[in-house]
Amino acid sequence: MFSAIRWTNDARLELLDQRRLPQSEVWVSCEELEDVAVAIETMIVRGAPAIATAAAFGLVLAAKDLSLDAAAYAAAIERLGATRPTAVNLFHVLRRFKELGLFDVSSPSQRLSLLLQTAKEVFDEDLQTCLRIGASGLDYARAEKIERPLRVLTHCNTGSLATSGYGTALGVIRSLHSAGLLEKVYVDETRPYLQGSRLTAFELTKDQIPFELITDSMAAFLMQQSKIDWAVVGADRIVANGDTANKIGTYSVAVNAQYHKIPFFVAAPLATFDLSRSSGEDIPIELRSGDEVTHFQGQAIAPAGTKAYNPSFDVTPSSLIAGFFTEIGFLRSVDINTRLRDR
Amino acid sequence: MFSAIRWTNDARLELLDQRRLPQSEVWVSCEELEDVAVAIETMIVRGAPAIATAAAFGLVLAAKDLSLDAAAYAAAIERLGATRPTAVNLFHVLRRFKELGLFDVSSPSQRLSLLLQTAKEVFDEDLQTCLRIGASGLDYARAEKIERPLRVLTHCNTGSLATSGYGTALGVIRSLHSAGLLEKVYVDETRPYLQGSRLTAFELTKDQIPFELITDSMAAFLMQQSKIDWAVVGADRIVANGDTANKIGTYSVAVNAQYHKIPFFVAAPLATFDLSRSSGEDIPIELRSGDEVTHFQGQAIAPAGTKAYNPSFDVTPSSLIAGFFTEIGFLRSVDINTRLRDR
Repeated sequence: MFSAIRWTNDARLELLDQRRLPQSEVWVSCEELEDVAVAIETMIVRGAPAIATAAAFGLVLAAKDLSLDAAAYAAAIERLGATRPTAVNLFHVLRRFKELGLFDVSSPSQRLSLLLQTAKEVFDEDLQTCLRIGASGLDYARAEKIERPLRVLTHCNTGSLATSGYGTALGVIRSLHSAGLLEKVYVDETRPYLQGSRLTAFELTKDQIPFELITDSMAAFLMQQSKIDWAVVGADRIVANGDTANKIGTYSVAVNAQYHKIPFFVAAPLATFDLSRSSGEDIPIELRSGDEVTHFQGQAIAPAGTKAYNPSFDVTPSSLIAGFFTEIGFLRSVDINTRLRDR
Repeated sequence: MFSAIRWTNDARLELLDQRRLPQSEVWVSCEELEDVAVAIETMIVRGAPAIATAAAFGLVLAAKDLSLDAAAYAAAIERLGATRPTAVNLFHVLRRFKELGLFDVSSPSQRLSLLLQTAKEVFDEDLQTCLRIGASGLDYARAEKIERPLRVLTHCNTGSLATSGYGTALGVIRSLHSAGLLEKVYVDETRPYLQGSRLTAFELTKDQIPFELITDSMAAFLMQQSKIDWAVVGADRIVANGDTANKIGTYSVAVNAQYHKIPFFVAAPLATFDLSRSSGEDIPIELRSGDEVTHFQGQAIAPAGTKAYNPSFDVTPSSLIAGFFTEIGFLRSVDINTRLRDR
C-alpha cells in the first residue's frame, strides 16, 4: 500500500515532500531528529496521523547517536512536541515513547532497537486503524440501506498522504468505492494550502476514483442542488464532548451540511481523541503566516502590505456532527466518554 | 472619483484591466464594439453595473461607423447581450438603448451624439446611484443605533472597479467608514477568481480603509468567534421574491450568517432587480471553465486531467437576506413587488 513515509534499510526516514505535489514527486531524506522536526513544521509531512508516525521515526534517528541519554531523549520529545500544536495524535505518540521505559534497557543498541520496533508499530497500527475506519464507514452505509451510490464531499487531505497509508475520511471513501457504493467525490480545494486540489486530487487520480474539484465556497451551492449525500472529513483533535478541530473550512462545511440536512461525519482514529479536554474552546488553534493567503507559490496575489488572517484549523461543535467513524466502529458524541474513558 | 471606465476625448473607451490587478495597472483601449464585448467576456471589466456601463459605451463605438443601420444596431445589442448571462443590469441598459428611438433621429452624427449622451447618462446615474446606496446603508446603521463601529464581512468586489465608481456593497462600507462607523472589513478572497484579494484589497488599500483578508472558508470561523457584525454583498440579479444571484460563495456566507444570527444585506441599484422572474430558480447561472479552479495564472495546481466544477454565481434565497440597500433606501424582500412593480 502506498505510503508517503518510508524507513530505509540504512536507517534514514524518507518523506514525500507534500509541498511540491502534484507537480513533482520529491522525497526528502531525514538523517536526524531536527530534519524530522523541520519537516513537520514546514509541512513536508502533514496530516495528524502522518505527523505522529514521522515523529516516532524522528526519535529513532535521535537514538542513532548511541550516546543519547535520558535528558537528551526528553529534549528530543520536547522538540517534536513544539512543532505543531493542534493535532493531538502527535502528543499521544510522544507520551507512548516517554512511557516506554527506554532507559530500563541496558545498552544503547538495544534502546535503538526498541525505538525502531515501536516506531514500526506506530506505523503499522495506523495503517490497520485506517483500514478499520474505512470498514466502519462502509458498514454504516450498508446499515443505512442507501439506495444509490453516494456523492461524498470531503475537505482537506485525509488519505495515504496524511496517514501511514489508506487514510481516514479518504479511507472511508476508498472503502465505499471498493464496494461500489460511491458515485463520486466532491473535493474542496481547501484554501489556503490547497490540500484538496494538490493532494486529495492527486490520490484520487492515482486510484481512479471519480471526483470533481470545487472551491470551498461552492460546497453550499452543491448542497442546495441536492448533489451531496454525505460530508466526511478527518480530524486533528476530538475532545470529550465531541467538538472537533480540523482544517480551516471544516466548520463552514458542517454549518452548511446542517442547513441542508446532509449528514456530516468525522473519520478518525482513537488517537485523535483527547478526553483531557472537555470542550472545543480548550483546543489550541495554530495561527500560520498570512503569506499563505496573500501569496501563491511566492507570487503576491494581494496588494503589498495586505494583512491576512490565517488560522490553520477551526472547531466544529459536536451538535453539527452526525458521528465518528473509528477503528472500533461508529460512535456518536454521547458515546465518547463511556466508550473511550477507560481505554 | 476613481473609475475603471473612462471615455476619452478622441472617442475611445479605456478599461482598467482587472485581470492584471493588483500587480499592474494597465488600461485596455477599446476602439470598436467587439473590443468591448471581448473585454466583458474575458473579465477585463467585471461587476454587474460596470459591465452595463461598458456595454453602453460599446454601442457608441458601434455608431462611430456612421453607416450603422437599424439591423446592425440590433446586432450590436445582441452581441453585447451574449457576453455574460447572469447579471441583469446589462440587459436593462441594452433595453434602454433598444427603446431609445435611435432611428427616429435623422442624421448618423446626431445618432452618435444621442448614444454618447445616453452612455454618459448611464455612467453618471450609476455613480449617483452608488452614492445613494452607500447613504442607505449608513442611514440603516444610524437607525439601528449601533454601539460601536461595525466589523463588516464582504465577498467579491463591489467597489469602484465593479461600478462607474464608489461601489455598491463597498459603497456602503465607504459610507460607514466616512462616518466613523466602521471598525474594519473582513474581505473574502473570493475563489476562484480572487476578486477579494486582488480587487477589493486593492481599493481598500488605496482608500486606507482598515481590512483583513481571509480565505472564503474562514468566514464561518470568524462568525463563530463573534468577530463579524454585518455581512454586506452586491448582486448580479435580484428577482421578484428577493432571491439574489451573486458571485459564487455568497450563498455559503448567507447560510453561515443566518446560523450565527448575523444580518446579511445586499447592496444593489434598482437596475439589478428583475421583476420578470419570480424566483431564483429562474436565473441563468454562468458556468465558466474549470481551468479557473485547476490553474493559477497558467500554472496547474491540481493533477493533469482534474475535472473542476466552476459555476460563476449562486443564488441566495430571500429567506436568508435581511434586506437590500438601494438608491431609494432600505427594502425588504416583501417590499420589492409593491415598491418596484410600477417604476
